[in-house]
Amino acid sequence: MQSGSVAPVAIERFKNGRRQAEKDLLAVEEPMEIRLDHGSVAERRSQPISVTMRTPGNDFELALGFLFTEAIISSADDVHMIRYCTDMQTHENRNNIVRVYLKENVVVDIDRLKRNFYTSSSCGVCGKESIESVRIQCNPVLQTGIQVLPETILSLPGTLRKKQNVFEYTGGLHASALFDLSGNLILLREDIGRHNALDKLIGAAHAGKNRQADPACGILLLSGRASFELLQKAAMASVPIVCAVGAPSSLAVQIAKAFGITLIGFLRDERFNIYCGEERIKKMEQ
Amino acid sequence: MQSGSVAPVAIERFKNGRRQAEKDLLAVEEPMEIRLDHGSVAERRSQPISVTMRTPGNDFELALGFLFTEAIISSADDVHMIRYCTDMQTHENRNNIVRVYLKENVVVDIDRLKRNFYTSSSCGVCGKESIESVRIQCNPVLQTGIQVLPETILSLPGTLRKKQNVFEYTGGLHASALFDLSGNLILLREDIGRHNALDKLIGAAHAGKNRQADPACGILLLSGRASFELLQKAAMASVPIVCAVGAPSSLAVQIAKAFGITLIGFLRDERFNIYCGEERIKKMEQ
Repeated sequence: MQSGSVAPVAIERFKNGRRQAEKDLLAVEEPMEIRLDHGSVAERRSQPISVTMRTPGNDFELALGFLFTEAIISSADDVHMIRYCTDMQTHENRNNIVRVYLKENVVVDIDRLKRNFYTSSSCGVCGKESIESVRIQCNPVLQTGIQVLPETILSLPGTLRKKQNVFEYTGGLHASALFDLSGNLILLREDIGRHNALDKLIGAAHAGKNRQADPACGILLLSGRASFELLQKAAMASVPIVCAVGAPSSLAVQIAKAFGITLIGFLRDERFNIYCGEERIKKMEQ
Repeated sequence: MQSGSVAPVAIERFKNGRRQAEKDLLAVEEPMEIRLDHGSVAERRSQPISVTMRTPGNDFELALGFLFTEAIISSADDVHMIRYCTDMQTHENRNNIVRVYLKENVVVDIDRLKRNFYTSSSCGVCGKESIESVRIQCNPVLQTGIQVLPETILSLPGTLRKKQNVFEYTGGLHASALFDLSGNLILLREDIGRHNALDKLIGAAHAGKNRQADPACGILLLSGRASFELLQKAAMASVPIVCAVGAPSSLAVQIAKAFGITLIGFLRDERFNIYCGEERIKKMEQ
């Protein structure tokens, strides 16, 4: 458990008809701005590109993962340095602005970024077009030969629960976890925002500190529901198998199908649903 | 249940060691763009201001609620007309662009909007400043005299469950519900995004079709966790009591305290925690 990710609070607890003062722990939520430094020495620019409400901890991984899953960088090699911004900061917001310095030769299309975050293209808005826009940004070649036992899939939530510390304390965090094909936990990240938990995980994998942690050879477990946004990020990281404890959305299933990702939902209580890519889950008779 | 809010899908279900083909229903997720028409006749402008992934249904309420909780309009009276955009649309995206026509005299600061959605101010980023920025947009005067019985609070999740149709089918939707002070359900809205469910609810209340539905005199129940964003929207609508089935975040508690909102969390299994504003919950001996 990272310091700064939980905060104490005084509450009144109502239970069995009785009411009493107690202490409780909350998951911390704080804004984090990512500021991008890019361009040649002659024309260097520093621009804020996003603000997300996140749980402090693994902030540089969050920034790295966000830039990668939003197709702003193509790998950690594009990044020269990441550090907290120290300009005009008080104690209160000391760690809430992360500055990412790109290498000089990395070109960023800020206008495309603005369009992406702020609004859509003018040609229309629909799920199909949302999927096409992801395809323009990435065309993942997923591992097709791999297969996983149903028992391995069933074991994942239990393994996650044993390790998910902050959730235990606060009940307030989403988790993203990367497992190998035998069901061993490789990496776990938590955040109040499910997209942030996944960006932290992908950022950690790309930071390269964990050579084992290759999302393209593993199973991703999401502690909640599976939305378009999470599948889009999984596609960017070439994850072949995505499992969610909760329900997937219609568009999550569509994007998984479009990119050949195996999508499993309602993975709990010794059961699961396979929405697509069932060839990666071994049949019992095999 | 609205048509268009659930979609059928073929799945393989794995249960008790057996695997079989079945049909399932998914919560639909589709992008929706809000396009704002504003300005005088001489200088009329049409601008896309946001895209959200939402579950189709109650789209005009979603647009109205979003504009209100983001302080772009001050009431439904600012709006001349809302309709689906028919320019350049195919069958696929027919209902995914909502155009809101403001009255001529309503002034919108588009630059402020861009700053809000796209990035923060340059002076720093922290939770305290996030709360201050909400205070600039609204200064709700909450009802202070009201009191609610603990038993009423305990009854809310059961009442919600009986009515939450799409969730029953798909397990995939968040709900926002407005109750009167006796625990009667007044309004319910569902969406794949919790912020959308609340915007739909507030939009429906402001559309004025339900004269009973005044968020300033009721109890708001959120089916999931309570984040900063949801409390910010509740503050904009002057809601005095907010209850969440899940955990609140640190910043949700801070904003509730700052605006005098009663915040209840973990409302389930015949118990709840009061995080602030406990004077609105009756003591047993009273």
